[in-house]
Amino acid sequence: MQFSARILGAALGVVLAAGTATAEEDKAIQAAIKARQSLMQLYAYNLGVLGAMAKGEIDYNATGAQAAADNLVAVNGLKMGAVWLPESDNFSAKNTRALPELWENGPDVAAKAKDLRESLVAMQAAAGTGADPMKAALGDVGKSCGACHKAYRQP
Amino acid sequence: MQFSARILGAALGVVLAAGTATAEEDKAIQAAIKARQSLMQLYAYNLGVLGAMAKGEIDYNATGAQAAADNLVAVNGLKMGAVWLPESDNFSAKNTRALPELWENGPDVAAKAKDLRESLVAMQAAAGTGADPMKAALGDVGKSCGACHKAYRQP
Repeated sequence: MQFSARILGAALGVVLAAGTATAEEDKAIQAAIKARQSLMQLYAYNLGVLGAMAKGEIDYNATGAQAAADNLVAVNGLKMGAVWLPESDNFSAKNTRALPELWENGPDVAAKAKDLRESLVAMQAAAGTGADPMKAALGDVGKSCGACHKAYRQP
Repeated sequence: MQFSARILGAALGVVLAAGTATAEEDKAIQAAIKARQSLMQLYAYNLGVLGAMAKGEIDYNATGAQAAADNLVAVNGLKMGAVWLPESDNFSAKNTRALPELWENGPDVAAKAKDLRESLVAMQAAAGTGADPMKAALGDVGKSCGACHKAYRQP
């Protein structure tokens, strides 16, 4: 019984140590999480427009496709790296699926971010030129999104 | 009793008429609502950075202030007018506080959007030049946000 109590005490100690962020820090972390999820939503919305054209759910139109592609590049260009705060992974914070590994693999994350940027710039060049080039570019964007999600987002 | 039933029937008819959107339309409307709320979140996040500097909660720094201001202008420049779909007001759709009046006052909405754009461009010019000019510009941005929210967003 005493042994169990000691184990329980140790376990609680770990939990409490993990929970030492101040209310102010928690607020900043939650604001950052909300902001990066908003970035993801804006990617999703514009990819949704292109995806609907690719699947024929809506007619391809060059102006709309170009606008969506321009938006993707603009969202990617926002200077919002600060939303990836330390201690804002899904082990340390609530309301996120970002794995701690994202903070532990800087060079791989940077390489995947570069792939994403390149696939979006290629989409921006292709989107207004026709449905087929847009579809091909969309495949590459999907791959670069998926590579990062697979490695660094909780399924 | 028969009279009441008739009134009830008429009322139900109105409700049913308001609810005739297809599942596909509902999906598009909810996607648009989510996307515009994400836009608002990105405004809020970047205004939050500037606001924290203005209130002295964090130290003013020119680079961070400039980045936040650049982000505000970039978010404002996204070609996402399509997220303001017809029938996506808070009378016709769920999960939104956008009042139907927003769709009924085109010229006033356009004037308020122009005010917002101008206040953000002024912020972009001021943000990196010092805490005091940034604070002054922030007041004007707040006024342009507030004007539209007061007129067109459910309290």
